[in-house]
Amino acid sequence: MIKKIGVLTGGGDCPGLNAVLRAVVKTAMGKYEWEVIGFKDGYRGLVMNDYIKFNSRDVSGILDKGGTILGSSNRDNPFNFRLEKDGKVEYKDLSERVMDNVSMHEIDCMVLIGGDGTLTSARDFARKGLKVVGVPKTIDNDLSATDTTFGFMTAVETATEAIDKLHSTAEAHHRVMILEVMGRYAGWIALESGIAGGADVILLPEIPYNINSIVDKIAERKQQGKLFSIIVVAEGAKPKDGDVVISKIVENSPDPIRLGGIGNRIADDIEKATGHETRVTVLGHLQRGGRPVPYDRILSTRYGVAAVELINEGKFGKMVALQGNSITDVSLEDAVGKLKTVDINGELIKIARSVGVGFGD
Amino acid sequence: MIKKIGVLTGGGDCPGLNAVLRAVVKTAMGKYEWEVIGFKDGYRGLVMNDYIKFNSRDVSGILDKGGTILGSSNRDNPFNFRLEKDGKVEYKDLSERVMDNVSMHEIDCMVLIGGDGTLTSARDFARKGLKVVGVPKTIDNDLSATDTTFGFMTAVETATEAIDKLHSTAEAHHRVMILEVMGRYAGWIALESGIAGGADVILLPEIPYNINSIVDKIAERKQQGKLFSIIVVAEGAKPKDGDVVISKIVENSPDPIRLGGIGNRIADDIEKATGHETRVTVLGHLQRGGRPVPYDRILSTRYGVAAVELINEGKFGKMVALQGNSITDVSLEDAVGKLKTVDINGELIKIARSVGVGFGD
Amino acid sequence: MIKKIGVLTGGGDCPGLNAVLRAVVKTAMGKYEWEVIGFKDGYRGLVMNDYIKFNSRDVSGILDKGGTILGSSNRDNPFNFRLEKDGKVEYKDLSERVMDNVSMHEIDCMVLIGGDGTLTSARDFARKGLKVVGVPKTIDNDLSATDTTFGFMTAVETATEAIDKLHSTAEAHHRVMILEVMGRYAGWIALESGIAGGADVILLPEIPYNINSIVDKIAERKQQGKLFSIIVVAEGAKPKDGDVVISKIVENSPDPIRLGGIGNRIADDIEKATGHETRVTVLGHLQRGGRPVPYDRILSTRYGVAAVELINEGKFGKMVALQGNSITDVSLEDAVGKLKTVDINGELIKIARSVGVGFGD
Amino acid sequence: MIKKIGVLTGGGDCPGLNAVLRAVVKTAMGKYEWEVIGFKDGYRGLVMNDYIKFNSRDVSGILDKGGTILGSSNRDNPFNFRLEKDGKVEYKDLSERVMDNVSMHEIDCMVLIGGDGTLTSARDFARKGLKVVGVPKTIDNDLSATDTTFGFMTAVETATEAIDKLHSTAEAHHRVMILEVMGRYAGWIALESGIAGGADVILLPEIPYNINSIVDKIAERKQQGKLFSIIVVAEGAKPKDGDVVISKIVENSPDPIRLGGIGNRIADDIEKATGHETRVTVLGHLQRGGRPVPYDRILSTRYGVAAVELINEGKFGKMVALQGNSITDVSLEDAVGKLKTVDINGELIKIARSVGVGFGD
Repeated sequence: MIKKIGVLTGGGDCPGLNAVLRAVVKTAMGKYEWEVIGFKDGYRGLVMNDYIKFNSRDVSGILDKGGTILGSSNRDNPFNFRLEKDGKVEYKDLSERVMDNVSMHEIDCMVLIGGDGTLTSARDFARKGLKVVGVPKTIDNDLSATDTTFGFMTAVETATEAIDKLHSTAEAHHRVMILEVMGRYAGWIALESGIAGGADVILLPEIPYNINSIVDKIAERKQQGKLFSIIVVAEGAKPKDGDVVISKIVENSPDPIRLGGIGNRIADDIEKATGHETRVTVLGHLQRGGRPVPYDRILSTRYGVAAVELINEGKFGKMVALQGNSITDVSLEDAVGKLKTVDINGELIKIARSVGVGFGD
Repeated sequence: MIKKIGVLTGGGDCPGLNAVLRAVVKTAMGKYEWEVIGFKDGYRGLVMNDYIKFNSRDVSGILDKGGTILGSSNRDNPFNFRLEKDGKVEYKDLSERVMDNVSMHEIDCMVLIGGDGTLTSARDFARKGLKVVGVPKTIDNDLSATDTTFGFMTAVETATEAIDKLHSTAEAHHRVMILEVMGRYAGWIALESGIAGGADVILLPEIPYNINSIVDKIAERKQQGKLFSIIVVAEGAKPKDGDVVISKIVENSPDPIRLGGIGNRIADDIEKATGHETRVTVLGHLQRGGRPVPYDRILSTRYGVAAVELINEGKFGKMVALQGNSITDVSLEDAVGKLKTVDINGELIKIARSVGVGFGD
Repeated sequence: MIKKIGVLTGGGDCPGLNAVLRAVVKTAMGKYEWEVIGFKDGYRGLVMNDYIKFNSRDVSGILDKGGTILGSSNRDNPFNFRLEKDGKVEYKDLSERVMDNVSMHEIDCMVLIGGDGTLTSARDFARKGLKVVGVPKTIDNDLSATDTTFGFMTAVETATEAIDKLHSTAEAHHRVMILEVMGRYAGWIALESGIAGGADVILLPEIPYNINSIVDKIAERKQQGKLFSIIVVAEGAKPKDGDVVISKIVENSPDPIRLGGIGNRIADDIEKATGHETRVTVLGHLQRGGRPVPYDRILSTRYGVAAVELINEGKFGKMVALQGNSITDVSLEDAVGKLKTVDINGELIKIARSVGVGFGD
Repeated sequence: MIKKIGVLTGGGDCPGLNAVLRAVVKTAMGKYEWEVIGFKDGYRGLVMNDYIKFNSRDVSGILDKGGTILGSSNRDNPFNFRLEKDGKVEYKDLSERVMDNVSMHEIDCMVLIGGDGTLTSARDFARKGLKVVGVPKTIDNDLSATDTTFGFMTAVETATEAIDKLHSTAEAHHRVMILEVMGRYAGWIALESGIAGGADVILLPEIPYNINSIVDKIAERKQQGKLFSIIVVAEGAKPKDGDVVISKIVENSPDPIRLGGIGNRIADDIEKATGHETRVTVLGHLQRGGRPVPYDRILSTRYGVAAVELINEGKFGKMVALQGNSITDVSLEDAVGKLKTVDINGELIKIARSVGVGFGD
């Protein structure tokens, strides 16, 4: 018999986190009359026993808000927890402390909402005997065990809006516009926003680019009378011939400073090759913020309700997932550590090529 | 060997129509080097031979635009075409005329984009031997042969934004707010926007409502200290006990006028029963307009490309469809005339009930 | 020496109320180190002594939120307060009670944020010797003592977005679209959104319309090949020849129900006269909600800071106002009870006529 | 008697250009029955005689579109026109050619829409005897002769939306977020979006910043329990002690590349000083694009109509301007070359300080 559950949100920000929390709290408290404890700032709160006891009013009005009312933290792993004392950093396994905290609260199951890092710890806690249920969260939609993650469509919306805005300016002023979006290892945001926004070139981590191929595409468009081009580039895109220096290591510089990212690099290369004025927009954390789109709110709500239903059915050590149109669950053992990258021969790439998109290959 | 195809858009407006046209034209002209003829204002243009010959520039910059550059018309059925002469209306089968027009243009296949009416005529033309491919369009997402139709998520976005706006006002001013959305026979827009917007009550054509049940829900919330309620009602919602008069037939009125819809009716009933001030917003055609959300632009593009690929593969008499995450095709014979209503025991309804939504039942 | 102030928000909802509260609290507490008491639900809280003591965190994150964190109430006049006991309604002057509450809190000055009703009571309290400062609020921008009120540009944005959405549908489907917006006595929202959205006809309370003139305009556009028209109508618009029945009094009807508003009435008249399909959208309270546009947030912030500065300078009995680009103040005695309607020979009307707008006259 | 006018749009992109063109064409053709010639791509079209003859349909549906249907070019000065032949660049005075083109078209007056560069040439043409009327355009709102320019409020809206999105993420994840906006010489966009978005620090070209002052502000907020901060920085902001290297000149680097702008520089400095994770978003040309807000559409329409009225009244050599709430005109001789920077003791700066904004001074 379940009487009390705990919940936390870990990892980078993602629109829909509050919607998951709302669904967990409303279902657990309203439908099953369980108590719900929320731990603050990800695993940090679980380690430090920093928590709130939810009442139903706490989750009113948060469905459409970005961020997470519980707070999050990015890199706290209870099995290797970062401690800082007297300026000295130390890493320590505090997982037993977590087990004890959960026991002392008499929590029957923890709902752990987060990305691959959070879920890997969730699996490790399950191995230690803790009852847990996971909810997957990645803005990049790069988790292999689920078809879609919440927050992703909101990021695509933000990037697509940006392309829309750049479009009219590019056209009126005969410019090449570059939009750098998130996606270090998987190019889903670039791919979907690029198709939705009608980009001319999309550069993904999965398809190393050749700058000449991009320059040719611009020239080809010019010959068709289209004097502008829009390029969407994932932050993790890279050229065919070796890596690009995009971080802070300018050697021999008197004052090493933060360089622009891959978008700036490509802009330079295009300007050198074509003489075309080229402008760069870097969306950065804009993609993690803001009001979630309805698609993400519904998916978040389904995930949150499903996590509570899993607990009610006694199915622990699982993660909720979306397969096709159906909510299902997978074992945490099977779910973590598997990246879902863009299939370079998949339908979306073919669709994009059919409507004339170049991938720099 | 295909050399030339035709295309038209029929039925009510739907965000994403232009994105389908763009994908059809870009794929047909760019990938396959076919000619593309666009007929204006739905079947009317096909009957009257009112058309444009597309060039690739015609579809530039339309991906994010509502409406359809070809125009549409709502109720023109070539098999029973409405003619008006000297004030007299006559209906006539002009389908042979259409067959001839297609022949004279030497069109190898027609792409017919539209709702159930347009697709029923498409099937009838296929029976007559015309090579056709259908693309489904319904803002209400109520076509049984496909999981999702483009335009629907944009309508849900418009309705959800409206709920978001009403929310803060309802809360600050202790009001009951009613939002009337589209959905004459199927309540998908009300259901999904209601979940996404956090509505307290959702009224669907599929679940006849009891006004007392709504009044009870408002009272229950009041007891919890929530002095406001948001009600989303599909235009086709109806009470358990008989129909509601919402059209123009006020008998004995000296000046019969257009009455408000079901939203106004429910507002009256709630005011009478509770004394609560109740406000109504009727979204109407707002839901059919505007910039399609990325989800719809991508789906439209997939449909448009897939329609051309069907033609290239010689698979005529088919309609493109989405099943799970995959684009597929179904026979027009099987696709038309089958309404997909909300499963009142389905997952979405359960999810909604889990987070506290009432359905007036 | 000021040590403590009070604040309340009264009247209908208006985007920017929270931004005013934030500016009042931040300036009073942060700059001057005064205490701030917030009374809940307008004058009701001041009568009932229902209040919160602000701390600086209370106003964090509310700048972009609609509604008001203090709540409001629409028709509570402390000089004629509605009381209900045993089902009997009674009106009573409770203004002395308010004076006493303010004294007991040792409040040095009240900031009263609201519309003409709220400000009229403010003036009456000033006459009784209470130190008050007013901040004007009207979504309709119809207060004569200030050039612009916050919330108005947000309402115009909501209405303009609606016109944008209707436009493409109207064009693709050859429809007449009617958008009914707020404005019972002054047509500012209809006028500015109509100009911004490119409406073809704008109907204002200030210019009684002739239905034939509207029909002629639609016909004239048709002759120019423009097969659609957009009509924006203020809820207070009325025909030249007598009033329109738009409320619930359908006599002899077996079941008198709420009729549609003026928008529905005009739709009927146009359909009868032209046979054109005509669709109506009623924005209603959507216009009072949502995230305030930057213009309104800045104006609200200016008003809130200015109100505190007035108190600091000992200028009581005043209302802050905008004249040209400058914040100034006017006496409450001069400010209340004066409606600012659209000048029918003013620049905006001329501008609109120059770009082809008809006013139904 | 005027019979024909010409129009062009010059300089960088700015939301509202199409709205000005629409108003000019509608008023000139509809109200006065003049012909209107549009020259393409700014002065380039006037030099090359590349033009279209407007008909009234050309400006339908463009009111809400970014960009300019005439195209623009950034740095073409007819008095010193850039010519490139056989790879050799040459500058030549082609102003006589322009005079001849205008004569050959029998154009009675040119409407020149653009920024300080475009308007300086306008003045020079006026000195040569050409009848011209100017319409001011600067996204930065930094023209001294007018209170507000169109496009500015749209840029402020884009920047404010970005701050809103960053806010929830910053709060949930305890981050310092930096938003770099336009404004090389004048910080209006940073200032107004910073106030509207509730930024904690705003950095302007007009107020050189001290990095320690920013670090102190972040620390002060931390002490109040606010573990995040939002910094809006104009691209032209600079530190008190000397300039910042933000361009491509990394000496001794094996591969000199484009560095990030001032936003990246400040992020580095803050991370070094505080250890706080700091994220940068660079809006770039997003601010020049997109759908103009209603404020800008109305202002653009007023400017466009007023320009035609000036011509009708025979007032040449003038520029339309906004002073307070009124449209007026100023002499081009007086209008050009005068930058309007932020008054560092003005009302807006005071307002911002009152609500707790730091300026790094």
